[in-house]
Amino acid sequence: MGTGTLVLLRHGESTWNAKNLFTGWVDVPLSEKGVVEAIRGGELLKETGVLPDVVHTSLQRRAISTAYYALDAADRHWIPVKRDWRLNERHYGALQGKNKKETLEAFGEEQFMLWRRSYDTPPPPIEADSEYSQAGDPRYADLGDAIPKTECLKDVVARLLPYWDAEIVPDLRAGRTVLIAAHGNSLRALVKHLDGISDDAISGLNIPTGIPLRYDLDDDLKPKTAGGEYLDPSAAEAAISAVASQGR
Amino acid sequence: MGTGTLVLLRHGESTWNAKNLFTGWVDVPLSEKGVVEAIRGGELLKETGVLPDVVHTSLQRRAISTAYYALDAADRHWIPVKRDWRLNERHYGALQGKNKKETLEAFGEEQFMLWRRSYDTPPPPIEADSEYSQAGDPRYADLGDAIPKTECLKDVVARLLPYWDAEIVPDLRAGRTVLIAAHGNSLRALVKHLDGISDDAISGLNIPTGIPLRYDLDDDLKPKTAGGEYLDPSAAEAAISAVASQGR
Repeated sequence: MGTGTLVLLRHGESTWNAKNLFTGWVDVPLSEKGVVEAIRGGELLKETGVLPDVVHTSLQRRAISTAYYALDAADRHWIPVKRDWRLNERHYGALQGKNKKETLEAFGEEQFMLWRRSYDTPPPPIEADSEYSQAGDPRYADLGDAIPKTECLKDVVARLLPYWDAEIVPDLRAGRTVLIAAHGNSLRALVKHLDGISDDAISGLNIPTGIPLRYDLDDDLKPKTAGGEYLDPSAAEAAISAVASQGR
Repeated sequence: MGTGTLVLLRHGESTWNAKNLFTGWVDVPLSEKGVVEAIRGGELLKETGVLPDVVHTSLQRRAISTAYYALDAADRHWIPVKRDWRLNERHYGALQGKNKKETLEAFGEEQFMLWRRSYDTPPPPIEADSEYSQAGDPRYADLGDAIPKTECLKDVVARLLPYWDAEIVPDLRAGRTVLIAAHGNSLRALVKHLDGISDDAISGLNIPTGIPLRYDLDDDLKPKTAGGEYLDPSAAEAAISAVASQGR
């Protein structure tokens, strides 16, 4: 049967993307533009005949809604669904809820880029009594004290890979087309793993929102085409440069 | 831990409900009114503190969308999802796609009510080449030749109960609050089983759309309150009489 096809879909614009706030684990909804992006993503799946057999999402509304609207548009609303916190966005620690531009001005370019893009430097941890903390959120009750209070990308890789191995790889080994609807940094973590990108080089990688990224994998789960293939390559190219300028 | 709580939610108005067509397994979407009903159902869950830990849906868009909008409104969008064809609406056979009023006029009151409400008389089977047949639909591929071509309510009970026993009862035994987002007849089949309603008496039972119906079950999985409790009893009472007049 061979190894299945992997499709990555980064959620569309959220209400906090639109306001230029650090979001992380704060569970904000898609904006109207984000819904349109998700539907367009689903239309691309349908138009290109890349039809998911199963979908994996984070526990966050913007990824769950993206999966819903995309699969509805692709007439694949009925496929099995799996959700896990390990697909969540990177926890942004004490930066959650803060304006990106103001943070840049307050802390300077170097510190700002370290928090945003360094592989192994997390922001300061969030306080449990912060209004933007997820302590006490019932969806993370099973995590107990292990719930993240901040994360760098290295932390995301470490918590993502057990889920990849245990839940996603078996679907791929069964020959399925697997959709992952998730976030900028959980998808960067996965792409780093798939494409063998170095800790330094990953800082330069941006994944555009709402454009499905297809990976065909060989028997060793290595991409047949490095970096995968966007289902709308020209839109992806235009979007990547827009993401890179966020926070400016 | 005790037996959990069961919550039944019949999908809101679909585009074919609005047109007064027999729908069955035809996969029509919710109407705008149906979306509003689903959101209201979710608000009722939230207001009454009946918070699902897991949701089961059919493979049909109107139930899947109802679950999505209701859980989103209840802030329970992140719970695990299970889907199965055994929760689908009754297959309406050759009546699928036909206008209810025209069918009533063409076949007369007695035959019409026999098809709609008799326990064990299915409508004529649908032809495989009908535009309203589900033969060849990939979501039912595993069923092969066992895919229904028509069903009476007795058939729905027979295909529903194995799923109830295998997938829903274990969730209840684990103490979970279980939401089932499904259809008029798959929910009637379940209520018949839960409340021990006779083959004759079930014909008079209507479940209103969009109003969560709560069952607390004892250790024998029998309802502590016969017929359960609607989360908005006065709206349920008004809606039940409206459903009864459908097709007139």
